[in-house]
Amino acid sequence: MSEPPFSFRITHTDGRARRGAITTAHGAIETPAFMPVGTQGGVKAITHRDLESVGAEVVLGNTYHLYLRPGDALIARLGGLHRFIGWPRPILTDSGGYQVFSLSSRRTITDEGAHFRSHLDGSAHLLTPEKAADIQAHLGSDIAMVLDECVAHPCSIQEAADAMRRTLDWARRARERMLALRSHPVDGVTVTNRGQAQFGIVQGSVYPELREASAVGTVALGFEGHAIGGLSVGEPTDVMYDIVSQTTAFLPEQQPRYLMGTGMPEDLVESVARGVDMFDCVLPTRNARNGQLFTARGRLNIRNARYAEDERPVDSECACYTCRTFSRAYLRHLFLSGEIVAATLNTLHNLNFYLDTMRGIRDAIAFGRFESFRLAFHQRLSRQALDS
Amino acid sequence: MSEPPFSFRITHTDGRARRGAITTAHGAIETPAFMPVGTQGGVKAITHRDLESVGAEVVLGNTYHLYLRPGDALIARLGGLHRFIGWPRPILTDSGGYQVFSLSSRRTITDEGAHFRSHLDGSAHLLTPEKAADIQAHLGSDIAMVLDECVAHPCSIQEAADAMRRTLDWARRARERMLALRSHPVDGVTVTNRGQAQFGIVQGSVYPELREASAVGTVALGFEGHAIGGLSVGEPTDVMYDIVSQTTAFLPEQQPRYLMGTGMPEDLVESVARGVDMFDCVLPTRNARNGQLFTARGRLNIRNARYAEDERPVDSECACYTCRTFSRAYLRHLFLSGEIVAATLNTLHNLNFYLDTMRGIRDAIAFGRFESFRLAFHQRLSRQALDS
Repeated sequence: MSEPPFSFRITHTDGRARRGAITTAHGAIETPAFMPVGTQGGVKAITHRDLESVGAEVVLGNTYHLYLRPGDALIARLGGLHRFIGWPRPILTDSGGYQVFSLSSRRTITDEGAHFRSHLDGSAHLLTPEKAADIQAHLGSDIAMVLDECVAHPCSIQEAADAMRRTLDWARRARERMLALRSHPVDGVTVTNRGQAQFGIVQGSVYPELREASAVGTVALGFEGHAIGGLSVGEPTDVMYDIVSQTTAFLPEQQPRYLMGTGMPEDLVESVARGVDMFDCVLPTRNARNGQLFTARGRLNIRNARYAEDERPVDSECACYTCRTFSRAYLRHLFLSGEIVAATLNTLHNLNFYLDTMRGIRDAIAFGRFESFRLAFHQRLSRQALDS
Repeated sequence: MSEPPFSFRITHTDGRARRGAITTAHGAIETPAFMPVGTQGGVKAITHRDLESVGAEVVLGNTYHLYLRPGDALIARLGGLHRFIGWPRPILTDSGGYQVFSLSSRRTITDEGAHFRSHLDGSAHLLTPEKAADIQAHLGSDIAMVLDECVAHPCSIQEAADAMRRTLDWARRARERMLALRSHPVDGVTVTNRGQAQFGIVQGSVYPELREASAVGTVALGFEGHAIGGLSVGEPTDVMYDIVSQTTAFLPEQQPRYLMGTGMPEDLVESVARGVDMFDCVLPTRNARNGQLFTARGRLNIRNARYAEDERPVDSECACYTCRTFSRAYLRHLFLSGEIVAATLNTLHNLNFYLDTMRGIRDAIAFGRFESFRLAFHQRLSRQALDS
């Protein structure tokens, strides 16, 4: 094709915050963007059309889960993940690494890759950087991530350095594999999306010197974008912000920057202020299923007895279907009754809140008033008590 | 008000089949109508807007469940069931009797009413005909049902006669209470819907002479419509059809007739042929949650391994969101992965199939070709094997 299917264009900047758009083979993603997590080929508890109704432009799929069930080869035979799940818009897939590392006792890491046992049937598997690239070639996501080694917090500088160097070595192998897949047929691998981009991942725990070395080394490998991994794993918030701020300074201005697995709404605002363009997190969806709802003034737990006869919407400033239609009293009743639709309505609201936050951020950057947006955002959050 | 808020108008007849419309304070219901079951104040697994997207005009609420949680007094304080659940269209409520009788060991029946223990907390309750009317006055449904005694199948003619006579006595008491609630304030009861109609229920098990006595006695009490209860409880299908056929003959031509708790799609067609106007059943919603999907050619179970790579929609003739968007392969994957949205998408399809069947029935009656519709419906069902 005459034009690269993947591109990133910055349209506005305001301080270190950037507004722009990623173009993929499956359409555009306005940035800064939040990506709802669709672990098993669907964002939990809501239909694709409900997801589109709240303005989601991209979803994240989990390579670990899809590899084990229904299997990446099956998905490739059916034309790739977009076609399999009936979602025509952009998809980013992770490498499977984070899930594998979370298996703790069920995995061992060597320079070759990650040996692990399936949480479904105990079967043994080996995930290498090449294998993670091959699986994602089958899935045909628009953005594939390299396999990385994510360390826990706290972690010694020696452990962090070892994991960072291994991640860098794996990134080199993953990139080589990706370039091979792009240039010629590779035995047994079906590339279902010729426009797939690949992002490298910066590791290095809370150690600035390791983060710098990781960023510089990763950038040199020539990826289409970069992620910051290994944060939101228990470190203090100010440490996370500092590492984000320091790391983005080493990442190319003209490529997208993705902070993985973060976070609270205020973390999104603060990370955008430090030059981040993309986010994913399970908080809005997982907390929804537990009855915790996000609002501009703070979180509320819909189980709370104070809502039993509360006719107000969850958030009077929210325009989502849930807030337009239902009272806190009814949502509480549905939740306490164990109705499936409670998860649906709560998820719809929480995702709308996250995506509204991103819309607010993008508008503020475009109008050069991101700093006042940021200030107002924090003031509103802290001024009112939770569940008030 | 100058016009009665509840009315029924027959617009077409074809043999014993009738097409028409019920008008309520919350809008119209085209008949023959199928009412999705919204047990706890919501049809399980789908949002109201998804329900509207498949053309549902009325839902059924269960008095037993709503009385226990969140409580009918709370619902009355919040303005009635429509307002509480955010559903502006018609609602029919049952009397709670069927659920209480299903508690078996947890209930005893006397002439006074049904003594039972809550399935939620074991607390003791007494449901009388008056109490069932009062609860439904609180709920403010558009159609309220009288408390009846439903016997199991098989059942001796003596047991059936006793239950039928008790049902008739209870119907008289329920009607008196309803007329009192309509004419003057009754202590401690808030009437949230002044346009509520009340239906009597014909019992008598499989005994034609009891059904006749029950119908004649119930009709004499002056209800706005009538239901046929005590069927679909295990009797052979041809016996059910005979009882329906015989009973509708004793019910007023100009009032709606409601066959309670039935049934399979073919039962709806056969009962319309015998003069029935309204139906409710948990089959489309409950079976959806178990992975069983209805089509014009028969049912299919989406768990079946043969669908693992089947790219076809569940039903190529169905225009629902599920069939327009998703393959059997993906729906199977969602179901086996335990995703909540599997229940949503399956429910949406099954309800669309039931409501499509009703739309087909209504069109056929309007064009005077109900008999050919009925024949074609059965031929299609039987000509092809299940899961083919």
